[in-house]
Amino acid sequence: MTVLYKANMVRGAEWARFFAERAPDLPFRLWPDIGNPADIRYLVAWVPPEDIATTFPHLELVFSVGAGVDQFDATKLPPHLPLIRMLEPGIAETMVEYVTMAVLGLHRDLLHFIAQQREQVWREIRITPAKRRGVGVMGLGQLGHAVLERLRAFGFPLFGWNRSPREIPGVTCYVGVDTLPRFLSQTDILICLLPLTEETRGILNADLFARLPRGAGLVSVGRGPQLVEADFLAALDTGLLSGAVLDVTEPEPLPAGHPFWSHPRILLTPHNASMTMPDTAVDFVLDAIARHRRGEELPGLVDRTRGY
Amino acid sequence: MTVLYKANMVRGAEWARFFAERAPDLPFRLWPDIGNPADIRYLVAWVPPEDIATTFPHLELVFSVGAGVDQFDATKLPPHLPLIRMLEPGIAETMVEYVTMAVLGLHRDLLHFIAQQREQVWREIRITPAKRRGVGVMGLGQLGHAVLERLRAFGFPLFGWNRSPREIPGVTCYVGVDTLPRFLSQTDILICLLPLTEETRGILNADLFARLPRGAGLVSVGRGPQLVEADFLAALDTGLLSGAVLDVTEPEPLPAGHPFWSHPRILLTPHNASMTMPDTAVDFVLDAIARHRRGEELPGLVDRTRGY
Repeated sequence: MTVLYKANMVRGAEWARFFAERAPDLPFRLWPDIGNPADIRYLVAWVPPEDIATTFPHLELVFSVGAGVDQFDATKLPPHLPLIRMLEPGIAETMVEYVTMAVLGLHRDLLHFIAQQREQVWREIRITPAKRRGVGVMGLGQLGHAVLERLRAFGFPLFGWNRSPREIPGVTCYVGVDTLPRFLSQTDILICLLPLTEETRGILNADLFARLPRGAGLVSVGRGPQLVEADFLAALDTGLLSGAVLDVTEPEPLPAGHPFWSHPRILLTPHNASMTMPDTAVDFVLDAIARHRRGEELPGLVDRTRGY
Repeated sequence: MTVLYKANMVRGAEWARFFAERAPDLPFRLWPDIGNPADIRYLVAWVPPEDIATTFPHLELVFSVGAGVDQFDATKLPPHLPLIRMLEPGIAETMVEYVTMAVLGLHRDLLHFIAQQREQVWREIRITPAKRRGVGVMGLGQLGHAVLERLRAFGFPLFGWNRSPREIPGVTCYVGVDTLPRFLSQTDILICLLPLTEETRGILNADLFARLPRGAGLVSVGRGPQLVEADFLAALDTGLLSGAVLDVTEPEPLPAGHPFWSHPRILLTPHNASMTMPDTAVDFVLDAIARHRRGEELPGLVDRTRGY
């Protein structure tokens, strides 16, 4: 009955401490100190080990340490093995902070002011009222929902787009690909919080940018491969997009000399928008383990056919 | 019974339009087209004209077009003439947006990420939970109050400091100079929203910075002369302060080559944090004029002895 953790080691030490406090009877190991592989029942991982099924014959649950699971090669996971996304509140709260900062930054001309400071230019920029700035979120899971809830107080017209129906007070929600153009046409600031799947790979492309109001802003916090780099740079150059805040790229880290680094209309952060917080994540994992033992439904259980 | 407007001309055209719509019987003039000076009863100004009292013998009310009145030379205004600060909701809402952006930026290491992008460095920075980041506002008038209300949802421990007592739900409020050290000791991010008076000139000085938790952040959105430049640069150099977002400076604009322009720990905006919004400001002025005619109390009336 052992838990094995294989991810960021600094935070791993905190996971170990919280497990020792809250579940002293549940053995907890930090990769690569795995002990007897046959003891491992629960795996918490960012990049999973090779040959999970043969190495850990008694594995019962696999947790992604992040909100996404696209880093798992589904073909190498036995189909019966439950894979669970991290639905812990620390990820959501840090994402809300970051996206709020990014949306307010685009709304209030932060990229212009950073450029003006560099050029030693003092020039006032007229403020657009929030009620005339539509903000839209693609992907209305736990994170998208939390982001829209927090943005409500600022008075932006709010829009959401999702594969399956969602209801969020104060938000006009659209469902399915047919409604995407209508959603985009009202979205002056677009936030991508979609999971990476075959449907969403390359979704931030020339066709999508052309359907936004001219001069829209982009906040990309899903996964790097959702953005078509050449289309994106062209949209910035032609003014279809006025600026972007990117936390995810393809690849990560970006190589030296990549055009995103020095582009004056791009604010870049190193996949740092949200972070699993050990304190709350340990509670989520312990709760999921308890539910699994009682044979109850598992929160965050990934639908392998859907990919999230 | 004429209103005279003397401030930003682009916005002045909008003031004229809203006045024509909402008070068609009240003549409205844009400086320098003043018509007969004896007709002017109400003046809305940023920098007031010289010799107000002699030029406009029938003046009844003077409005500052901004939230502050320090740009008025009180010795040149007749003591009986009511001076009114702009308490319109557009100023408060734009200030809330800016300060929220600045606080989240300091909280989420935005200055580091801007510097890393410039150096093409991809390096994750560990996120500090909001509950371990105290945020404090000096000056609990309309703006300070509105800022703290909006920050509440983010989970920061919130503190306020004011000359006279205030109660704001979820905020620990301190009153008077004796409590300043206690307030500062808990404030990891300090927001200055004080009016400029003889008491607040130079208040952001070495003694104050030394009382903050080491590595604190500063958001300066009151008035430029509140900041002692040499003390501030020294505090950044020694690490007492880790970064600052400045919207006000002394002088404005900053001259070419001033050290703030190129300092990697300073984010600078051109006195652009908040803006009087003509739509809501015209309502405020019309309401004040109506109250004045009815002999009622005037919102935003400046206490000349206090200076705000």
